[in-house]
Amino acid sequence: MLEAPVLAVNMKAYGNAFGSGARDLARAASRIASSTGVRVILVAPLVNAVLLASIYDDVYAQHADPVGFGAHTGFTPPEALAAEGVKGVLINHSEHKMLYRDVEKVAELAKKAGLEVLACADTPGEAAGLAYLPVDMIAVEPPELIGTGIPVSKAKPEVITGALEAVGRVRSLPVLAGAGITGGEDAARAVELGASGVLVASAVMKASNPEAKMRELAEAMVKLWRKM
Amino acid sequence: MLEAPVLAVNMKAYGNAFGSGARDLARAASRIASSTGVRVILVAPLVNAVLLASIYDDVYAQHADPVGFGAHTGFTPPEALAAEGVKGVLINHSEHKMLYRDVEKVAELAKKAGLEVLACADTPGEAAGLAYLPVDMIAVEPPELIGTGIPVSKAKPEVITGALEAVGRVRSLPVLAGAGITGGEDAARAVELGASGVLVASAVMKASNPEAKMRELAEAMVKLWRKM
Amino acid sequence: MLEAPVLAVNMKAYGNAFGSGARDLARAASRIASSTGVRVILVAPLVNAVLLASIYDDVYAQHADPVGFGAHTGFTPPEALAAEGVKGVLINHSEHKMLYRDVEKVAELAKKAGLEVLACADTPGEAAGLAYLPVDMIAVEPPELIGTGIPVSKAKPEVITGALEAVGRVRSLPVLAGAGITGGEDAARAVELGASGVLVASAVMKASNPEAKMRELAEAMVKLWRKM
Amino acid sequence: MLEAPVLAVNMKAYGNAFGSGARDLARAASRIASSTGVRVILVAPLVNAVLLASIYDDVYAQHADPVGFGAHTGFTPPEALAAEGVKGVLINHSEHKMLYRDVEKVAELAKKAGLEVLACADTPGEAAGLAYLPVDMIAVEPPELIGTGIPVSKAKPEVITGALEAVGRVRSLPVLAGAGITGGEDAARAVELGASGVLVASAVMKASNPEAKMRELAEAMVKLWRKM
Repeated sequence: MLEAPVLAVNMKAYGNAFGSGARDLARAASRIASSTGVRVILVAPLVNAVLLASIYDDVYAQHADPVGFGAHTGFTPPEALAAEGVKGVLINHSEHKMLYRDVEKVAELAKKAGLEVLACADTPGEAAGLAYLPVDMIAVEPPELIGTGIPVSKAKPEVITGALEAVGRVRSLPVLAGAGITGGEDAARAVELGASGVLVASAVMKASNPEAKMRELAEAMVKLWRKM
Repeated sequence: MLEAPVLAVNMKAYGNAFGSGARDLARAASRIASSTGVRVILVAPLVNAVLLASIYDDVYAQHADPVGFGAHTGFTPPEALAAEGVKGVLINHSEHKMLYRDVEKVAELAKKAGLEVLACADTPGEAAGLAYLPVDMIAVEPPELIGTGIPVSKAKPEVITGALEAVGRVRSLPVLAGAGITGGEDAARAVELGASGVLVASAVMKASNPEAKMRELAEAMVKLWRKM
Repeated sequence: MLEAPVLAVNMKAYGNAFGSGARDLARAASRIASSTGVRVILVAPLVNAVLLASIYDDVYAQHADPVGFGAHTGFTPPEALAAEGVKGVLINHSEHKMLYRDVEKVAELAKKAGLEVLACADTPGEAAGLAYLPVDMIAVEPPELIGTGIPVSKAKPEVITGALEAVGRVRSLPVLAGAGITGGEDAARAVELGASGVLVASAVMKASNPEAKMRELAEAMVKLWRKM
Repeated sequence: MLEAPVLAVNMKAYGNAFGSGARDLARAASRIASSTGVRVILVAPLVNAVLLASIYDDVYAQHADPVGFGAHTGFTPPEALAAEGVKGVLINHSEHKMLYRDVEKVAELAKKAGLEVLACADTPGEAAGLAYLPVDMIAVEPPELIGTGIPVSKAKPEVITGALEAVGRVRSLPVLAGAGITGGEDAARAVELGASGVLVASAVMKASNPEAKMRELAEAMVKLWRKM
């Protein structure tokens, strides 16, 4: 088990994921992590992940490509993220699916470069396959709930428990839950079901006060975590 | 006609396109542009284009995706590049081909966001199609010569003149030549054939002294330009 | 100019594009071609193009891949279509876009194998690029009108005339018009604007009587053709 | 356990996978199946799977797309294969990889249409994920051995046993082995390791006598099968 629950915030490509909004978010993430003890991972766009990593130390990029250094115009080698100070990478998100063999290649290159890897799955079955790869965490998100505000932890708890079981058959690995997570209660429910934390996007990015929303999610999880 | 020839340096994803090597290159590009009067465009990886744009003001990103701001994990809206201070974007490179409709969409979004667009073509025919889109420059590069050191301006001058003719049938637009350009003589020959400059990658990125190589290419073009 | 106008019927993957419905359509196409003098091209699904070609001699496949004979599981070399008796191939349809370089490769392989090629374009600009390739006809279809019943020849005549002009700058080549063509009047209008015929799909495939609909479209075009 | 071992012959897009060579192969497959008792599945190109299915009843197509009947130019709905008399479909071959979610969709559509599904995996991990989908068999093939003549059953037996174990953790499902299988001995060795048969391509398609090669592979497997 992890020492603390994880709050992974996927900034996606929302307007406030760039420019000064992004810098504010990085500073807020730092404050929430310090004050709650929750691990807050900021999953940043490719174009400013490096910049945000200079403000906050727990920044992942939203994608990397299955290539090493070389003649690859416009592609992002995992090694390049490491060279520029980014800590990890999220791959295979529902909005950016890759072939299994490419997920494998990125995971291997990332691991070799010293990057952490969070791989996403739509279903328990997809999660099972990913558990065979050198990834550090898996996030399961039913695509039909992403961005809906209908929380996976309430509407489809069997996806979370199914993913935990499917991954558990392979090896011990933290599983985050995502899709439709809107408030502290949804996040706590995911942890209660066995998840090691949540992956959220619109709940924070579209909140009138993103820092307050991160705090709400973090505090609800940590409260439950201490009891477990 | 442009006021000065263009030297576009595609950093690709070579090892020295990241970390301190990249910063050095940005400073060198700035010096070459100042001292020769050639327009030096540094075509940077997605992950450090923003950072390099804070060092040198003529930085393009190597790619952008056909999306606006929104829920697009790991994709790069042209608008995001503009919001982060990048000046332009290279699209449709031989190593990163897109559907024609996606090139169109990126070009339109980029234009709307105030970004310059340099679109690449393999052949005169592909260049003709691109000339109908809101792009600022076209670079023609026969893919079979890229990275070979066999300069297009000598081995396949008809690709350059063919592209100039094909684009010219549509509208007046600067055309750069690329693929295999290795030294000043190759660059000058491209300008002599009617190109507005060159797009290079390995010649500079793999040079023992990238700044000296940029200077050689820039000086050879500018010398000829003044005579024309 | 062609000897007769072209009615290209894209069967797509509608339910009646398979099984006995498909055989009936092939026989109907044969009758319409004989009785009206219009060239009726039946654009068939990959899985039954060969079978339909044994019933009617003017059958095209709906796609081919940029590969020759070899180890390409589940892909269709143009050469294979020729070897199995199919007459031509439609490529780059709005629902099946390819990279420009792949359109080029398929066109070249098809030509070499003796297949006719009908390439699709969304816009005049895309059509201009295709005119540089070894294709026999170009069909222009604004994607936003496909399947709507709003005929391109009435709603966006400038796309047809623009494509004719853009292609004409490159070389002499028949251009078909498509998208939203519903009845004889729409087809005649396209011919009046300069198109060599029409590419239709739902108008015929979803008609209660596909043969009657083909007859209506063919007769309207041929009537006008004779006057021109 | 299956009643008889499986010999799946992937015709790929080799020259003799089309025209009269293909018809001969279908007749030969029929004879081998009858005389040896082995289940011989002929995995045919999209363009002649229907035709071959009228000669031999155990024909699979080499691919299908994740779409139902409708406006999908050049794509192949699983339902269409069923409507045209094809028995099954091979998906996710190493030469035609799909996203996991697309494999899932094709498998579901195929199942609903009454088609059998053979899904391919590069590795035990990929096989584990596929075992969660409604497929009938899984074939594991290390891509680096395909077409080499270096048999997986000898060079990488751990891939076969690893896949058997990974799939077995999920559910009971026949696993075929493939890549580099050249002769009867390699096929027997795969069965000995626990595979339910083999998936071969070049061994048969490039043999001077494809029927003799199929016989050799079938007889070696069935001999061992009877002892088990």
